Amino acid sequence: MSVKEHWISIIHQMQDNICAAVEACDGKAIFFEDKWDRPEGGGGKTRVIANGNVFEKGGVNTSIVFGDVTDAMKTQLKINGAKWFACGLSLVIHPLNPFVPTVHCNYRMFELYNEKEEVIDRWFGGGTDLTPYYLFEEDARHFHQTYKNVCDQFDPSFYPTFKNTCDNYFVNWHRNEERRGIGGIFYDYQRATEKQDVDFWMNFGNRCGNAFAEAYITIVEKRKHAAYTEANKHWQEIRRGRYVEFNLVHDRGTLFGLKTNGRIESILMSLPPTVRFEYNYQPAFGTAEYKMQEACLHPRDWLNETTDEEKDEWARRSNTC
Amino acid sequence: MSVKEHWISIIHQMQDNICAAVEACDGKAIFFEDKWDRPEGGGGKTRVIANGNVFEKGGVNTSIVFGDVTDAMKTQLKINGAKWFACGLSLVIHPLNPFVPTVHCNYRMFELYNEKEEVIDRWFGGGTDLTPYYLFEEDARHFHQTYKNVCDQFDPSFYPTFKNTCDNYFVNWHRNEERRGIGGIFYDYQRATEKQDVDFWMNFGNRCGNAFAEAYITIVEKRKHAAYTEANKHWQEIRRGRYVEFNLVHDRGTLFGLKTNGRIESILMSLPPTVRFEYNYQPAFGTAEYKMQEACLHPRDWLNETTDEEKDEWARRSNTC
Repeated sequence: MSVKEHWISIIHQMQDNICAAVEACDGKAIFFEDKWDRPEGGGGKTRVIANGNVFEKGGVNTSIVFGDVTDAMKTQLKINGAKWFACGLSLVIHPLNPFVPTVHCNYRMFELYNEKEEVIDRWFGGGTDLTPYYLFEEDARHFHQTYKNVCDQFDPSFYPTFKNTCDNYFVNWHRNEERRGIGGIFYDYQRATEKQDVDFWMNFGNRCGNAFAEAYITIVEKRKHAAYTEANKHWQEIRRGRYVEFNLVHDRGTLFGLKTNGRIESILMSLPPTVRFEYNYQPAFGTAEYKMQEACLHPRDWLNETTDEEKDEWARRSNTC
Repeated sequence: MSVKEHWISIIHQMQDNICAAVEACDGKAIFFEDKWDRPEGGGGKTRVIANGNVFEKGGVNTSIVFGDVTDAMKTQLKINGAKWFACGLSLVIHPLNPFVPTVHCNYRMFELYNEKEEVIDRWFGGGTDLTPYYLFEEDARHFHQTYKNVCDQFDPSFYPTFKNTCDNYFVNWHRNEERRGIGGIFYDYQRATEKQDVDFWMNFGNRCGNAFAEAYITIVEKRKHAAYTEANKHWQEIRRGRYVEFNLVHDRGTLFGLKTNGRIESILMSLPPTVRFEYNYQPAFGTAEYKMQEACLHPRDWLNETTDEEKDEWARRSNTC
């Protein structure tokens, strides 16, 4: 099996696994699949879920696309070669309940070929990040710890590096560098080396992608029955506005797709189902909404900070001395 | 009074006139004003209306901004000079009732100075365009006719030229060149000539801007009491999604503001209050929603086409021959 075939099978298995986990958690809605062809070469399987018990809108998409390297790719993307190939999985899940976070992930491989169709370059990218509407610090730690555990099995430098890359990518630069959420991991342009070969990177992507259920579904199960008010839903829709702003103004993948005749509906599946934009909306100081916004404005080192419980414990001890 | 002072007074008077017309039509909500300063020079008056009887969200903003020509402006905007000045009015009004269209307009002047603070270049731009959710052909004709009447008093070539520029600017290029709405007029980089001097262009902007009530409020008054269903509101929110896509992905003014430390809340005031994004939503063939979408996909020459009434009349006559 070629590298390409191996990666395709990983991505399709990942899509099946994730869809099964999401459906089981939802208990009502199931995915429907749109298969599409790309006129210039390749196509994809877009799987969409909507109006579930738990998930208001979501998509788990795979695509396998290829073609000639165009002049636009040479100048705008600085890609040199005769032909290219890309295969990846991309998902965004928007839950109904504002206490359940939105999740995004993407795992992909890119290959470049010369005129003889020999591989002349190959790189891997990917990551998973969380966008809560209300901050539960234990959930943030659980999410980051899950990916740190995967990373640490491959290279101890990965988690801190990829966590940092993630914090610096999902940023609404126009809003005082407010982050879209509380991050996770993100890596790109990772090429095989003697020590970390192609199998290493495929395996890493595979393991990260398949940590989805442990990282995310665990949190959903914990929060999905939480009671919420109209005010909570209102806040979720305001924050979803920030999601739209990031995806349409800053996200390189979305903009590249929109400007190069990608499949629009598969690209924009990432946009939240219902959204609000209000003039200069600001949560009141000290509220749960305010704390969530602060966590987006100031990325935190979730696995190396004093927890609220620890702070309380220390305060109690110092009071009893 | 200098050109600058004259234009500033035109813009502020226009803001007062438009706000008064909008408030009178709404009958409940009134504008509140946020005055803001720009650290690099100048500031603005953002006037916002929300949760009215008729208008769900709207902003009528003026700004007077100036500063040194930066390196970024020289390279990205191809502007040469020592200092610049810009003054304009910008408005977007989103009504509650899906049978009432959204309107946008913008009138502005830009000046460039040399080191001695002498004016070395000056141009005018502006326009008004309509975004209905349901198509009433008589409203489309009324809107276009109003601006044609203003244009024709200045130059008979203006309306066809500026109508065309408008159709080719407010375009969601990523959606098969779907237009944001049914257009109007749009002009830019208009410089004084011997025949059409600075006063001519100031007067033209003034007359276009002050045609707002005749062009738009007339339509609002006709439709504001129309009964509507949840399905109509749903469709309005889907189409508002297209408004968001255009403003965040394509609109040069919005993107320039977001990327150059503009006042974010004044820029993003244009975004609709509530929005829906659904995967691959398509109105059923032949419905009112479908007809609206078709009118956006294929811009029409509203003032030179056979009307439905005329077609009916001809069909009736040919049947009776």
